[in-house]
Amino acid sequence: MVVTDPTNIRWCTGFTGSAGVLLISEDRQVLTTDSRYRDQAPAQLEASGCEAEVLIGSDWVAAVAAILKDPNGVDNPTRVALEADRIVWADQRRLADALTADLVETAGLIAELRSVKDEAELARIETAARIVDAVLKESQDRFVAGVSERELAHRLDDGMRAAGADGPAYDTIVASGPNAALPHARAGSRRLANGDLVVVDAGALVEGYRSDMTRTFVVGSPDDRAVEIHDIVTRAQAEGVAAVRAGVEAGEIDRACREFIAREGYGDAFVHGTGHGVGLDIHEFPAVRRGNTAILSPGQAITVEPGIYLSGYGGVRVEDTVVVTEDGCRPLTKFPKEFVCLSSQPTI
Amino acid sequence: MVVTDPTNIRWCTGFTGSAGVLLISEDRQVLTTDSRYRDQAPAQLEASGCEAEVLIGSDWVAAVAAILKDPNGVDNPTRVALEADRIVWADQRRLADALTADLVETAGLIAELRSVKDEAELARIETAARIVDAVLKESQDRFVAGVSERELAHRLDDGMRAAGADGPAYDTIVASGPNAALPHARAGSRRLANGDLVVVDAGALVEGYRSDMTRTFVVGSPDDRAVEIHDIVTRAQAEGVAAVRAGVEAGEIDRACREFIAREGYGDAFVHGTGHGVGLDIHEFPAVRRGNTAILSPGQAITVEPGIYLSGYGGVRVEDTVVVTEDGCRPLTKFPKEFVCLSSQPTI
Repeated sequence: MVVTDPTNIRWCTGFTGSAGVLLISEDRQVLTTDSRYRDQAPAQLEASGCEAEVLIGSDWVAAVAAILKDPNGVDNPTRVALEADRIVWADQRRLADALTADLVETAGLIAELRSVKDEAELARIETAARIVDAVLKESQDRFVAGVSERELAHRLDDGMRAAGADGPAYDTIVASGPNAALPHARAGSRRLANGDLVVVDAGALVEGYRSDMTRTFVVGSPDDRAVEIHDIVTRAQAEGVAAVRAGVEAGEIDRACREFIAREGYGDAFVHGTGHGVGLDIHEFPAVRRGNTAILSPGQAITVEPGIYLSGYGGVRVEDTVVVTEDGCRPLTKFPKEFVCLSSQPTI
Repeated sequence: MVVTDPTNIRWCTGFTGSAGVLLISEDRQVLTTDSRYRDQAPAQLEASGCEAEVLIGSDWVAAVAAILKDPNGVDNPTRVALEADRIVWADQRRLADALTADLVETAGLIAELRSVKDEAELARIETAARIVDAVLKESQDRFVAGVSERELAHRLDDGMRAAGADGPAYDTIVASGPNAALPHARAGSRRLANGDLVVVDAGALVEGYRSDMTRTFVVGSPDDRAVEIHDIVTRAQAEGVAAVRAGVEAGEIDRACREFIAREGYGDAFVHGTGHGVGLDIHEFPAVRRGNTAILSPGQAITVEPGIYLSGYGGVRVEDTVVVTEDGCRPLTKFPKEFVCLSSQPTI
């Protein structure tokens, strides 16, 4: 198998460089990378106890071809697996030209292995989650009318770093007012105003692992609709979390949230999947979405994050990262879910 | 043509979402994206004056296939161009199954168009460059023995944001002592120590556009070798900058730097290419590396960044972002290049 996804390579070997290809066979594991990583690659493999050989060169296709033809190397495989959704077409074509073996399309083999975390991996995600819980709590008095989304996002990012994180796990989202109706809004120049719903979606990065949490606040007094949709989303999210258990299909978690929201009349406004695995990548296996029949396993870290989005008005999303257990799940993000009214007193 | 690279899509349409595919024909331009971007996509296209239609759906392959079969749509093309190095093999196979047209491998068509910047694009890169010049200057007294690489990188990142940047253009590198021998080191927990070479590689992000600059300092008194290699790299970099001019091959800039360093006896220690285009992406067309025959054009923004890396000892890199002009180039990064000795007095 030729592994081309950088995160999969990191998980297999410990190597964190931006360029590299890992060849795995029964006989041999070889990491090919370029001269920039001449020192770093062997050092990282040794540190993580990985016994793969390191090969430095500028043409990994030629390197892989040479290994597969080497009489002392892999026994002339007739089939070579590629990560079809993690290798660009141009590279597949170069390999097809260089190799006599059949190239086999695979998807998600390592992603599935990666989804089940060991204790050390979970400890990092949990540390990341705890940092964001604390930073959001200590920053909450800054979330007031007049402050810009971007200032608040930077405040959270700075707080994460001060608390020992390597940084945010992804671009921290602070989406206020009409921006809260955009599920993937970023933090922009808009300033919080009285009556805004404010979606805060933040995670931290700790030794390569990520947490993911969303809470929604309101500036000043919420109108009736804000109270209604916050309540619906919070209860839908609890339904989703209650459905998490080893042995159930990922799609069942989505169904629990989606049916609840639909029953309350907002089915069309829940415009995305319910969640995703989280770990070295912020979005990884399994997708917690409609119809996904992947069976949840103990040790998987997933998010549960339903939302309601109303164009031009605003939106609500509530999200936790949880670890699947035999008989349920263990939430890693623990910030309270009450509908908190932020001060409408503009800062000076 | 089916455009799958998100940055190319942004450049063509203004859309900044993480998921989307752009179909371009003589008759029609259609951006397909998913329901998360229901509001954002039309708003961004309108803001940038792009007249492409927006199609919301979960299966872009089916959407593209439907458009290409639509009698009112594109006239049943017999050939559809793909960005071969920007589309994964799995998607190419799905398209091959869904379309009757031949799929044509292309590389770098839009990247080459993107490389020539207009005045508004250059103004953003220049603003980013000016921010880093200023932040590095005002932070320089923090670069002293005892402070960790990561603290310094965060200090620079915070300074960029405070100065109006959207953040760093890439993970800011502060590589000290033996870490400076790793061309792509990140900022880690190592603390600056007396005698260290310290490579600081930092750029800012302003409205999507990026700057890129590297300077190398020493903590306390440099030894003879540090003085020697800093001098060689600085002079090699000046040779490279002097070679930049519209009409010359990108590889000529690399040759100017590389031959200078080789003549001084450190050819084997310059382990990477000399530079790269910079803009919406931190690494874009053209690659400024050995043998690249791409001809430089006025308005291209490129980096010139030779280095010398000595395993276990340390390294030096000096880098500017410059704009190619008819008769030379205009540097955008302007921080002085003297070999500055940082205080060896540990902070308390």
